[in-house]
Amino acid sequence: MKLAIDAMGGDHAPDAIVKGAVEAASAIDGLSITLIGDENQMNPLLGGAPNISVIHTEEMITSEDEPVRAVRRKKNASMVLMAKEVKEGRADGCISAGNTGALMSAGLFVVGRMEGVDRPALSPTLPTEDGTGFLMLDVGANVDAKPNHLLQYAIMGSIYSEKVRGLNKPRVGLLNVGTEEGKGSDLTKQVYKLLSDAPIHFIGNVEARDLLSGAADVVVTDGFTGNVTLKTIEGTALTMFSMIKQTFMSSFKTKLAAGLAKNDLQQLKTKLDYSEYGGAGLFGLAAPVIKAHGSSNERAVYNAIRQACHMIEQNVSSTIANSMKELQVKEENE
Amino acid sequence: MKLAIDAMGGDHAPDAIVKGAVEAASAIDGLSITLIGDENQMNPLLGGAPNISVIHTEEMITSEDEPVRAVRRKKNASMVLMAKEVKEGRADGCISAGNTGALMSAGLFVVGRMEGVDRPALSPTLPTEDGTGFLMLDVGANVDAKPNHLLQYAIMGSIYSEKVRGLNKPRVGLLNVGTEEGKGSDLTKQVYKLLSDAPIHFIGNVEARDLLSGAADVVVTDGFTGNVTLKTIEGTALTMFSMIKQTFMSSFKTKLAAGLAKNDLQQLKTKLDYSEYGGAGLFGLAAPVIKAHGSSNERAVYNAIRQACHMIEQNVSSTIANSMKELQVKEENE
Repeated sequence: MKLAIDAMGGDHAPDAIVKGAVEAASAIDGLSITLIGDENQMNPLLGGAPNISVIHTEEMITSEDEPVRAVRRKKNASMVLMAKEVKEGRADGCISAGNTGALMSAGLFVVGRMEGVDRPALSPTLPTEDGTGFLMLDVGANVDAKPNHLLQYAIMGSIYSEKVRGLNKPRVGLLNVGTEEGKGSDLTKQVYKLLSDAPIHFIGNVEARDLLSGAADVVVTDGFTGNVTLKTIEGTALTMFSMIKQTFMSSFKTKLAAGLAKNDLQQLKTKLDYSEYGGAGLFGLAAPVIKAHGSSNERAVYNAIRQACHMIEQNVSSTIANSMKELQVKEENE
Repeated sequence: MKLAIDAMGGDHAPDAIVKGAVEAASAIDGLSITLIGDENQMNPLLGGAPNISVIHTEEMITSEDEPVRAVRRKKNASMVLMAKEVKEGRADGCISAGNTGALMSAGLFVVGRMEGVDRPALSPTLPTEDGTGFLMLDVGANVDAKPNHLLQYAIMGSIYSEKVRGLNKPRVGLLNVGTEEGKGSDLTKQVYKLLSDAPIHFIGNVEARDLLSGAADVVVTDGFTGNVTLKTIEGTALTMFSMIKQTFMSSFKTKLAAGLAKNDLQQLKTKLDYSEYGGAGLFGLAAPVIKAHGSSNERAVYNAIRQACHMIEQNVSSTIANSMKELQVKEENE
């Protein structure tokens, strides 16, 4: 099993990336990793760790780069070389914590789409109150989605949740403005019908207010709504933590309370930190491509690597590809 | 100034509604209120309060009723009679804490649309970290919005924020998946252009993660996205409060901390309670129609009444109507 990793993407690159990779390469059996980035920065952190090789490049894509143009023009950027390792068969999957849009472009233009999938979907696992988490897709790979795209997301998300997250008959829900059938926009009404006939365990519409209480294991939505939902969860949680902090700093009494509850509140924050659940998969590409969170630390990188390994071991890509073929055959027969 | 109020809508009806109305009718100069509902339940709470009259009916629309059908068939429902008071000129505006969909239908079919507005928008004021709040519209009156609808929302929201919330040049933002111009879906790209030329203080795209930190005073979005965003904020906040509660109940030490910080945490909850900011206006109707939150207590009802009074005093409806006429003239000249 071989992974290509963009060592230069993310807020804590290359340190967190290299350290996470070193840990994973020694902990996970049969794994070898190719790190792509500046060897001058990486070598001191590597110290001759086993199962790790390096491809040196000094070019990189930044968070300010315009995604499509950057991928086309910066031919030697660490992220582009990473995708090329997969494309040319020298790696089974890849991971980057860099520019999300650029990774989607590199995935699409370099790694390539899976046959039968119209649009790849960006698919993070988000926290739930009970710690199980749920997969949401798409959160922004494709902002103008058609009904058929959401059908494909549902199937891909269901397969991933079964194979990698180990869920039996994952409950697939359609994000909507009400739970009753017949609710929603033109798009969701059409998708509802498609999902009802799909080879998944479709539980109907779910409302945004019930996501974090675990209303579904897989939540399907268009990329625009999914992106806004994801960022609303992030923003609300951050604002609340900030307000809680202010509350606890407001008086002697509350400072005392803060001291007593500090560790427990820290645990709460960890519980809501979705890098604990790995990175966001870009489903629908020819091989596993994982977007690790931009703020990924060593542990988040390690989790993303484990996730990519699970996807490879469980043949998620080929299982999805087979399901898509069956779907096409079914559509042609109808 | 005369308001018609549906006394039978909401989780705490008629008690909270009647009490809030009694308080407002005695506190607000020149206000008289007509309460519509079951007089047998209301009379004991009224006790001859001044400036309040009652229209008796025992029919009501429940939260389970299908909105459009309920408004058409339940001709004597408290909510329908309330809207009729406005339609027939016996009230200047109306308030209900009942079934949101039914209130939108009653607003549209009984009160009627304002000339020049294609679609009314449901427009709550949501909390921000600094306590200022922001107006978001639409949160679900119209789930399949066209670019022109969002232009109208922006103008209506801007006028309301200036006249009722007292903001000078309210900052209007377009909810989008990125802040740069050119980001987003086909819809938001078209709306961006329209808002750039509109008679408002347009500050560009805003991201969902910045809403609660007060990125804009007025946030414009389609009804599907707005509904999901609103419910995501609610759901995330509720889940976090529930997790905080669990955290504080987990050990003797944290229970002690909870005791010390209890009042301050309660204040935090109040700060995030958006019924503090009044109800959600249904903008674009011929007269002010306010949806009070379903869980409204006496204080929330009082706040919604004050809000309706402000809208009437400040001639919000006629100001919006004039702006819409100017917009039409401008479009015809182009």
